[in-house]
Amino acid sequence: MQIIGKAEILKHVDVRAVLGDIENGFKAFAAGKAQVAPVTHLGFDAANGECHIKCAHVADDSVFTVKLATGFYDNPAKGLPSSNGFMAVISAVNGTPLAILQDEGVLTDLRTALAGVIATRLGARSSAKTIGIIGNGIQGHLQAKLICELLGYKSVVIWGRNAEKVAALVKTLGSELPAVEVAQAPTAEALCEQADVIVTTTPSREPLIQADWVRPGTHIVAVGADSPGKQEIDAQLFAKASQVFVDSPSQCVEHGETANAIKAGLVAEADLTPLGEALANGAAPRSDEDITIADLTGVAVQDAAIAKSVWNSVERNSARP
Amino acid sequence: MQIIGKAEILKHVDVRAVLGDIENGFKAFAAGKAQVAPVTHLGFDAANGECHIKCAHVADDSVFTVKLATGFYDNPAKGLPSSNGFMAVISAVNGTPLAILQDEGVLTDLRTALAGVIATRLGARSSAKTIGIIGNGIQGHLQAKLICELLGYKSVVIWGRNAEKVAALVKTLGSELPAVEVAQAPTAEALCEQADVIVTTTPSREPLIQADWVRPGTHIVAVGADSPGKQEIDAQLFAKASQVFVDSPSQCVEHGETANAIKAGLVAEADLTPLGEALANGAAPRSDEDITIADLTGVAVQDAAIAKSVWNSVERNSARP
Repeated sequence: MQIIGKAEILKHVDVRAVLGDIENGFKAFAAGKAQVAPVTHLGFDAANGECHIKCAHVADDSVFTVKLATGFYDNPAKGLPSSNGFMAVISAVNGTPLAILQDEGVLTDLRTALAGVIATRLGARSSAKTIGIIGNGIQGHLQAKLICELLGYKSVVIWGRNAEKVAALVKTLGSELPAVEVAQAPTAEALCEQADVIVTTTPSREPLIQADWVRPGTHIVAVGADSPGKQEIDAQLFAKASQVFVDSPSQCVEHGETANAIKAGLVAEADLTPLGEALANGAAPRSDEDITIADLTGVAVQDAAIAKSVWNSVERNSARP
Repeated sequence: MQIIGKAEILKHVDVRAVLGDIENGFKAFAAGKAQVAPVTHLGFDAANGECHIKCAHVADDSVFTVKLATGFYDNPAKGLPSSNGFMAVISAVNGTPLAILQDEGVLTDLRTALAGVIATRLGARSSAKTIGIIGNGIQGHLQAKLICELLGYKSVVIWGRNAEKVAALVKTLGSELPAVEVAQAPTAEALCEQADVIVTTTPSREPLIQADWVRPGTHIVAVGADSPGKQEIDAQLFAKASQVFVDSPSQCVEHGETANAIKAGLVAEADLTPLGEALANGAAPRSDEDITIADLTGVAVQDAAIAKSVWNSVERNSARP
């Protein structure tokens, strides 16, 4: 067993390959060919902290993954990052622990953004041109960058609560993506008027997007609501949507945007389309006027896919003479 | 974060200190002052393997523990041990992963045996002299050794299905414990005639001890039944017992020896005494004629206690000039 640090891990990430691996993970999960254990949660109230453990194994994979992620929200005041943790890669053939990927959260950030890419490709109408990003953090940055790089979008508009941070992100993306037009939206409503795909990436606990702001033809990818109590979009939007994709039906019904809509009777569990099922069989046809939603809460098959990809690359390279 | 291997770990184990730590862990658990997450289980049928993940944090401890344990039962044919895994020690103050204790199962063996010591001290009658061990594996060896070393017993009798292995264990223990009389019992029934405390340490799936073999005054410590389907003692023994101690009421009711007895209507859940409660308040008085049972299924507070003890020792020693 070895510990592999963040810098070394990043050398072994091939985002295009991981994109395919995560798609396959979602397909296996929807087809009942992946084991995804219930998420383990520990709370540390005195330190304003928590720990989640997620485990998955995709059938026939030679390794499985256990991810430990901590969030201690008073850390920044101590000069430490809020997030920490690792992914352990273990042989599914003989149970031997192979590696600790001490990724400092970067693999989770990447696999989350790549699910956004997958959900965008799956659900956006073919004439979609402009990506709208709600949020000015790491996830907003990554989603914008990877969606443009991997899917060829040429126009991005960003809104976040902190206008200064949004301006900085617009500048960064402008230099990272010289062929893409990147702009700041003055309000979330203004963003909705311009965006064909809206990706929400905040930890908000109240809707940032009202249903009547969203134009026909828009595809919403909701990424932020990964635990109970979080909400980024008006639940009424579900009543307007022709199709709702969910990365995990059980998680999305329990928390996520879908949970709010189900509670309000605006969508039924039977109407949800598992993301992996749509990836395997193709999404139902959509018109250019349809509003569609993808609710992403994060599934351990994504961790398993990215950790396996990194580990396979480490092994290939160490085997070279 | 660092990986600490088995040899180094063993230098940092002080069994007397860990015994107290595990007792405190049981007390905290019974008092609702420990977080113990539900056990996560993954199965790998094609490889005849499985993985369990156990997590615990005892209130006010500065670290918490996540234990990953694999069992791949075709490994010995490939020249590999069946069991593998590690304990991760993580800061409960800021979420930083501190160490991976790659113990190869030795800490689990030890914490299991130390719970046997605790249950023996708690439940055995004061006039008890002879320890009977059922099973000739690592756990049988450790229980005999630690019960004698830590509690001062001077007489051990052992029975197991493999008479040759029992004979070898008798020889080993004889040289390890020169002041103790160690003997081999020809049958389990003969063992019951001699032993005042019986510790069962096998992975049996059918009773090895019949209720009518057990003499009045005997204290039974059942260690082997750590998952559904396992059973070492006749469920009828519960009907004869004046007191039943359980390390975890929820686990013992779900699997363990107690589960079989509850299913058969021989004991009620309300009659079980949590081990930690009895440790905190003292066990109810017992006569020299009473039969008592301690059902131990293994609780993550034991892992947390031993991992914390090792980590504290590592830190103390690395801090020395």
